[in-house]
Amino acid sequence: MNVAILGYGTVGSAVCEALIQNKELIKARCGKELKPVVALAITPKPNALVPVVQDIEEIIKREDIDIFVELMGGVNKPFAIISKLLKQGKAVVSANKAMLAYHRYELEEFAKNAFFGYEASVAGGIPIIKILKEGLSANQILGIEGILNGTSNFILSSMNEKNCSFDEALKQAQNLGYAEADPSFDIKGIDAAHKLLILASLAYGLRHKPEDILIQGIHEISSEDMYFAREFDFTIKLLGIARAQNGKVELRVHPAMLDKNRLLAKVNGVMNAINIKGDMLEDSLYYGAGAGGKATASAVISDLMDCARARSKTSMLGFERQIPYTLVSQDEIYTKYYLRLKVEDKIGVLSKITQLMSENQISIDSFLQKPKSKVDHSTLFFTTHHTYEKSIQTLLNTLEKQDFIKAKPFMMRIQS
Amino acid sequence: MNVAILGYGTVGSAVCEALIQNKELIKARCGKELKPVVALAITPKPNALVPVVQDIEEIIKREDIDIFVELMGGVNKPFAIISKLLKQGKAVVSANKAMLAYHRYELEEFAKNAFFGYEASVAGGIPIIKILKEGLSANQILGIEGILNGTSNFILSSMNEKNCSFDEALKQAQNLGYAEADPSFDIKGIDAAHKLLILASLAYGLRHKPEDILIQGIHEISSEDMYFAREFDFTIKLLGIARAQNGKVELRVHPAMLDKNRLLAKVNGVMNAINIKGDMLEDSLYYGAGAGGKATASAVISDLMDCARARSKTSMLGFERQIPYTLVSQDEIYTKYYLRLKVEDKIGVLSKITQLMSENQISIDSFLQKPKSKVDHSTLFFTTHHTYEKSIQTLLNTLEKQDFIKAKPFMMRIQS
Repeated sequence: MNVAILGYGTVGSAVCEALIQNKELIKARCGKELKPVVALAITPKPNALVPVVQDIEEIIKREDIDIFVELMGGVNKPFAIISKLLKQGKAVVSANKAMLAYHRYELEEFAKNAFFGYEASVAGGIPIIKILKEGLSANQILGIEGILNGTSNFILSSMNEKNCSFDEALKQAQNLGYAEADPSFDIKGIDAAHKLLILASLAYGLRHKPEDILIQGIHEISSEDMYFAREFDFTIKLLGIARAQNGKVELRVHPAMLDKNRLLAKVNGVMNAINIKGDMLEDSLYYGAGAGGKATASAVISDLMDCARARSKTSMLGFERQIPYTLVSQDEIYTKYYLRLKVEDKIGVLSKITQLMSENQISIDSFLQKPKSKVDHSTLFFTTHHTYEKSIQTLLNTLEKQDFIKAKPFMMRIQS
Repeated sequence: MNVAILGYGTVGSAVCEALIQNKELIKARCGKELKPVVALAITPKPNALVPVVQDIEEIIKREDIDIFVELMGGVNKPFAIISKLLKQGKAVVSANKAMLAYHRYELEEFAKNAFFGYEASVAGGIPIIKILKEGLSANQILGIEGILNGTSNFILSSMNEKNCSFDEALKQAQNLGYAEADPSFDIKGIDAAHKLLILASLAYGLRHKPEDILIQGIHEISSEDMYFAREFDFTIKLLGIARAQNGKVELRVHPAMLDKNRLLAKVNGVMNAINIKGDMLEDSLYYGAGAGGKATASAVISDLMDCARARSKTSMLGFERQIPYTLVSQDEIYTKYYLRLKVEDKIGVLSKITQLMSENQISIDSFLQKPKSKVDHSTLFFTTHHTYEKSIQTLLNTLEKQDFIKAKPFMMRIQS
């Protein structure tokens, strides 16, 4: 299937790159090759991975394009283009949340006879559209609480962790490329509101526009508010909130004090997370990158693959054919380890143990000897640097045979 | 579409109940009514919501059943039944992870011409099958780390939080119904291994069986290990782990020391969580209930709806028709609030503020006065009990007009 990329910026180039780099995997999973054949860009892109043209008409009139990926931004122009394509029965994938916040129900009409995917429009690194539309489809959605804007979350995290002012945190975000020169859409809650409205359609079928809901930004939050939050065990987060009761739904975007012990409160930096409460499964939470070229491209391509699969038959386990993975043998597992040893309390024991470790190429990362209790042996705790499972197993077998070992040595792996 | 429930226990009855209770919602979302028409149970169920029979042949031979839900447990018997049904082209949904751990590739063959759903087989409250199969399908899966067994996680959480022994924690889990009389499958890591193998098929197409992978249970973990973990900032979790590099995959189930600051380490009690690292979206994490009648039923019904949708056309936003939700007006929002006020430092100010609050039916939850700095006003912080947005807005408007207020009052909502 031939893919046209309308907009060759960070996301567009990441889509092309991944389609090329993960070509075999994608083909193995969905049974079709997805080939980027042309891209649209206003300025020339000398290093582009596909031919780049500057006139959109040149792409739209081509008969050999199977799917169009819209990454242009804006509202009215992309809406006009996508509407036209869908009416012609062409498949379209878009990451454009602003356009969806205003035109999603018109697009739904046009998409009745054509594929339209928009997984990338909310939290690129979390397949939240599919989760709400399909995974949780049996549930009455009682509530949604989402950290939907990475820029705001980065600023709030910085203010909290580094005790800096809003302006300092914003400047830092801009320096790191997390905030744009004009950060209004992010810090004033507009971007989060666009995303909340898309989720609200999936959960409740609400057709409202950004003007209809409560939106408060984070730009008025001061260090003093941060001070208070800390004193009272809160964390401040910009949340998109939906809450349903008796057929009525609250929709709002605003900074909120959140119990610092909630999982959602522990989501820091540019990450996104969405907590959904359903009548059947109670709380579930989804956490991942909110933006960035690769994460957004991941969502765009999952839509392309959905489109491809709809035209073929999806295999039950997601692969149309076997790909060349093999299982690592247990001996080859390579990780850090934790050991607990009960030993006789006598001279030379620690020296012997460390010698055995060294003989097995095992290097100690930390060591703790617990004060001896009334019973007649000591407990030693070790953690190791990375080593092979085979080495640890050999060490354990050797240790067990030593007369100073008073109980079967115990080992656990450390997940780093 | 008529649904037969093979196995009317906790999950089976929850499926029936939800199909009846959320009938309209389900129909609105997938365009079909899903009607439970018969259930299988060994013993009579006098309060069952559907007719219950004891002979499976009586159900299987019926011509009016569109989907069969297998909730019997076991391996060989359900495999034989499901194989037969799929070969006849009948749609089947199953929650049976043990059967899938052994027979998933045979089932995939049989399911080439019939629908087979198994979302409920891993972490009922997290649509992880769909996430891996479709949402993250563009990614090379670099790693999976999953808390896949609620019983073990409950025991480890208890040992950590209450400083109790493994035996005490297990007994408590049994008393609360979180562990079975024979808890071997859960505490020895077998159940987690079954689930990991299913995920490994989705991520890598690996056909291995439980015998092929490393499995260590939690039954040997002592209070001393917990002591160590705390001293060294670890949390102990039973993890199902997959790690891929250069086409090779590690698969293992074992208790692991995990940096206590990782999100995964903060997942306590019977909850499940799965961290997935993809080459494109880096880390994402999915958190939800692992088991329980309703959460598992939620997954079963999402499969039933997928089946129903495959026979109709899914609307872009997940609803075939509008359902009667309306938007709550902003005035009606009902939550707790946080206020920051800059006031002149003089007698009677606090009294006046609290009087205004009281006049607006706003009740104070907490109050903090920050020591006065060099500048000539004090800062007051309030949190309120639940109240209406309209009341707070009225209060703010009134406060702004007071001469003792030295800066625009600031308000945030508290998410409780």
